Amino acid sequence: MGSGPRTSVACCCVASPHLTGLLVVLDLVGIFVFALSGALVAVRKELDVFGVLVLAGVTGLGGGFVRDVLIGATPPSALSDWRYLLVPVAAGLVTFLYHPALGRMERLVAVFDACGLAAFCVAGALKAVDYGLGPLPAALLGMVTGIGGGMVRDVLAGRVPVIFRGELYATPALAGAVVAVLGQRYGLPLVPVALVGAAVCLVWRLLALRRGWQAPVARLRTGG
Amino acid sequence: MGSGPRTSVACCCVASPHLTGLLVVLDLVGIFVFALSGALVAVRKELDVFGVLVLAGVTGLGGGFVRDVLIGATPPSALSDWRYLLVPVAAGLVTFLYHPALGRMERLVAVFDACGLAAFCVAGALKAVDYGLGPLPAALLGMVTGIGGGMVRDVLAGRVPVIFRGELYATPALAGAVVAVLGQRYGLPLVPVALVGAAVCLVWRLLALRRGWQAPVARLRTGG
Amino acid sequence: MGSGPRTSVACCCVASPHLTGLLVVLDLVGIFVFALSGALVAVRKELDVFGVLVLAGVTGLGGGFVRDVLIGATPPSALSDWRYLLVPVAAGLVTFLYHPALGRMERLVAVFDACGLAAFCVAGALKAVDYGLGPLPAALLGMVTGIGGGMVRDVLAGRVPVIFRGELYATPALAGAVVAVLGQRYGLPLVPVALVGAAVCLVWRLLALRRGWQAPVARLRTGG
Repeated sequence: MGSGPRTSVACCCVASPHLTGLLVVLDLVGIFVFALSGALVAVRKELDVFGVLVLAGVTGLGGGFVRDVLIGATPPSALSDWRYLLVPVAAGLVTFLYHPALGRMERLVAVFDACGLAAFCVAGALKAVDYGLGPLPAALLGMVTGIGGGMVRDVLAGRVPVIFRGELYATPALAGAVVAVLGQRYGLPLVPVALVGAAVCLVWRLLALRRGWQAPVARLRTGG
Repeated sequence: MGSGPRTSVACCCVASPHLTGLLVVLDLVGIFVFALSGALVAVRKELDVFGVLVLAGVTGLGGGFVRDVLIGATPPSALSDWRYLLVPVAAGLVTFLYHPALGRMERLVAVFDACGLAAFCVAGALKAVDYGLGPLPAALLGMVTGIGGGMVRDVLAGRVPVIFRGELYATPALAGAVVAVLGQRYGLPLVPVALVGAAVCLVWRLLALRRGWQAPVARLRTGG
Repeated sequence: MGSGPRTSVACCCVASPHLTGLLVVLDLVGIFVFALSGALVAVRKELDVFGVLVLAGVTGLGGGFVRDVLIGATPPSALSDWRYLLVPVAAGLVTFLYHPALGRMERLVAVFDACGLAAFCVAGALKAVDYGLGPLPAALLGMVTGIGGGMVRDVLAGRVPVIFRGELYATPALAGAVVAVLGQRYGLPLVPVALVGAAVCLVWRLLALRRGWQAPVARLRTGG
């Protein structure tokens, strides 16, 4: 009941001492790339420099904030570690200054974004397990960690979240989180479990990007 | 201070051992019907199947999440009980597959929705009391439990919350919550108190639906 | 870890016993004026009386709610003190009844709003410090306390937050919060520290209002 992590998995936005070396790097990369995507949206909406920084921060950190608030891990780790706060500021300033170049690298940004999604869904799921949640809620919170920042970004920017619009984005995150939760549950070693989970999410998402996979949409007016 | 419920009222999304039999059923019915309404909005906005499931989950569980986070009851009960997670998934899939039929039963859905509102406002208020809140905040949190999910649904779907648009919706929820809080405060037995509170909300809401009652709107440009 | 304030700074929405006399007044004034601004937005959007009250409450209390949830200070102080709940109701009703007059006093409302911002950013930052956050997160939470309510108001009212639209609003709040955090960190007495921080924010914001200062916007299409 909000009494902190039970075992050794949780730490920063993420992970156990065993994973720290690997996952803190992935985590900061993920925050950076998500923050870039938020800042790009802000620049295109012609928000001012402050709007760019706020959308960068919300997109990079939002998913982790929502997860930490829901599992009672307050204050969120991003508020205890200044690196987590400076990374989105850097991403926001880079975007503000160099957005025309970034705009041309959209494909590269999408690949990095998939890496961020992969890291976040695994890290979020393992942290939720560590705070005592069952497998199903933990997997869902892993997905929320991955997609939450982008949803808040889109709501603040005044548009319906793009993940609702037929882009295959949440399913890979859920799949990666499920793999991580199951592996942890069956006592497999953490590092390979995390890597396999992240790889499942990453490959799925990259394939969806490359092949233009879309989630099905309900047909309105089904033939009268 | 987030140290958990003081007495015996709280449990799942809801209520005391005494109430469990009754209120867990009402609770799950409420989640199901709220989730239906969220999924219908998503289908009409032509979101994909994932958007339908997310809006179903947010609408069914959102009010309880907001309440639990505010009173420090983390993780929210919906994250500790898999039934609370499967119900909105079921509602979302049913809507995705059978939405034309559901669209024709709009009146029936509205009646179920009123039942959900009645269950949620009472359950939310009693849980807040149980976590040590005073009568006024507890009644407000009961109202928030009832209306919160729909507000988040509408924000994510890119429209101003419909409860703001002259539909008499929040007032019955507040009334039901006030009745429950007052009854509990004066030591009346819980089950009748909960039933009377829910009945007040339900009857008021159904009358508002049937007679088209609207909340007043401020006049702009008052004759110069 | 959500175990409550460490020292003597925190209390209501705000502040230490030493500051109470001063800051509770500022706090309630801030809530009242923020609530007025939320209610005016609601009236102009032709929301009904309930929408007016909800937007008034969200705008007046939202920033503090977000801060308290993030630092684990649940339930938020506004839910433990009925004055914090009645003030926005009063502001909402006043606006609903007398909005034409209020609309004509827009300049006066903006000045009060700047006072509210000044009080909130300092109070929010000092409360965050008191809950054990480092200087940088505490200053950011001070800013969030000041600007959060308005952001939620705009999202619920279906518009992109105005603070993103070139109005110099968040920077003064961040500056005031930084002054307060630094002063507190170097052991200076609390009352002058709070006053100087609030003054920095207030003067900066009023100058920005008077001179039409704007934050820079990224140039789209930079000449090809």
